[in-house]
Amino acid sequence: MSQVRIHNFSISLDGFATGEGQAADAPFGHAGERLHEWMFATRFWHEMVGGPGGSAGADNAFAERYGPGIGAEIMGAGKFGPPGWQDDPGYQGAWGPNPPFHTPVFVLTHRPRPSMRMEGGTTFHFLDATPGEALEQARKAADGQDVRIGGGPTVVRDFVTAGLVDCMHVVQVPIVLGRGVRLWDGLESLEESYDIEAVSTPSGVTHLTFTAKNR
Amino acid sequence: MSQVRIHNFSISLDGFATGEGQAADAPFGHAGERLHEWMFATRFWHEMVGGPGGSAGADNAFAERYGPGIGAEIMGAGKFGPPGWQDDPGYQGAWGPNPPFHTPVFVLTHRPRPSMRMEGGTTFHFLDATPGEALEQARKAADGQDVRIGGGPTVVRDFVTAGLVDCMHVVQVPIVLGRGVRLWDGLESLEESYDIEAVSTPSGVTHLTFTAKNR
Ligand SMILES: NC(=O)c1ccc[n+]([C@@H]2O[C@H](COP(=O)([O-])OP(=O)(O)OC[C@H]3O[C@@H](n4cnc5c(N)ncnc54)[C@H](OP(=O)(O)O)[C@@H]3O)[C@@H](O)[C@H]2O)c1
Ligand SMILES: NC(=O)c1ccc[n+]([C@@H]2O[C@H](COP(=O)([O-])OP(=O)(O)OC[C@H]3O[C@@H](n4cnc5c(N)ncnc54)[C@H](OP(=O)(O)O)[C@@H]3O)[C@@H](O)[C@H]2O)c1
Repeated sequence: MSQVRIHNFSISLDGFATGEGQAADAPFGHAGERLHEWMFATRFWHEMVGGPGGSAGADNAFAERYGPGIGAEIMGAGKFGPPGWQDDPGYQGAWGPNPPFHTPVFVLTHRPRPSMRMEGGTTFHFLDATPGEALEQARKAADGQDVRIGGGPTVVRDFVTAGLVDCMHVVQVPIVLGRGVRLWDGLESLEESYDIEAVSTPSGVTHLTFTAKNR
Repeated sequence: MSQVRIHNFSISLDGFATGEGQAADAPFGHAGERLHEWMFATRFWHEMVGGPGGSAGADNAFAERYGPGIGAEIMGAGKFGPPGWQDDPGYQGAWGPNPPFHTPVFVLTHRPRPSMRMEGGTTFHFLDATPGEALEQARKAADGQDVRIGGGPTVVRDFVTAGLVDCMHVVQVPIVLGRGVRLWDGLESLEESYDIEAVSTPSGVTHLTFTAKNR
């Protein structure tokens, strides 16, 4: 069976995966880019944006697991665009004409719209569906490959709570955001369902891996 | 100047330093002993309770910094005893006749009582005072040595917010508690005042050190 995976999901020490005040020019609100600076420094990211360089150490080893084996992504309306994007019928997502997914992407929203085929192999489909139903569609589209849950935190929580996630990679960044949307809310006793490992790296972040037990 | 230090302060992944439902037979509420199992396994702890054995690796290296150089502790009413201890005039604290502090201990409470001299060098003093005032008294009692802020989370937060803490050692345990008292609340942007390092160890916990900048 194909796996359901979460990668490079970055949170603050206090568990926020995004800050307050999300907007078109501030997709992570007052967090700015601070949750992902560790990733921007990696070769994985440099290659993704088409440039040379980038670190090739431990952070990169985790980061580059993002792509291989993934046949589809599921994301939330809050990741797809800033509050209110649903009111703009021409809105194409936060990534421009060639989004970095290169697979079918299923956007969970209560206001679905027709699918949108982008450059580079990404097609956005819009779904008003339960996590289980969305996963079923994404699995079909992934054609035997794995499905990535792309976030944001609300959607990650919903899929974890529904017992649908096989492995989750969380990166804890040494900042205290104070406000935003928390990853951990509602996930009490997560350690009963997942083997958890922690690895801190010289950049100052701590990589946490959650591997579903009994699968 | 003597330092103000916090040691072995243990939290869950979601930042709780104690669970819900604190009681005489459950000082950490529904968290049970899970926040401190890493510490109970160390030589530091084994020696503290008078037994042989215990691990002597990385966790122990952090844990045993607890005692040396400390001349006094400040703690909150919530650490001293379960809810309602103030109604029992004979209550002597959660540790029995020979508490593990061996220094003057200042208990912050809105219902102070006369000081209590215990075995082994611990004397409990009860103070209704601001963090700054309490620290002034503790510093005098510490006679040039450092002052430990012993917790719980409410008191730790208050002293950090007041800018009084020089170094803080937090241990993040891979469990999600879901409810209790959080360490991080109100500490937004802590990274601006502290250098933060993270070290995960084979036991599965991550040690975080916070060192005040510019001191
Ligand atoms: N830290 C990271 O690594 C990371 C990763 C990805 C994203 N992010 C950030 O996370 C933020 C977004 O996260 P978020 O938690 O606010 O939102 P989100 O998880 O992206 O999306 C939640 C929204 O999706 C829609 N939705 C979710 N489940 C649905 C379902 N079953 N059926 C229909 N609609 C459903 C609902 O929107 P409607 O009711 O409006 O339709 C819901 O409010 C952004 O700031 C993004 O930049 C962070
Ligand atoms: N995770 C760890 O490593 C660790 C370490 C230590 C303790 N703990 C746990 O933490 C829990 C207690 O923490 P908590 O946050 O609930 O309480 P706490 O920080 O121990 O104490 C807070 C209480 O102390 C009194 N107080 C605080 N500041 C005061 C001031 N300036 N003046 C007068 N009184 C003041 C108030 O009580 P009154 O108004 O009732 O007087 C206040 O409600 C316990 O479960 C304990 O086992 C955990």
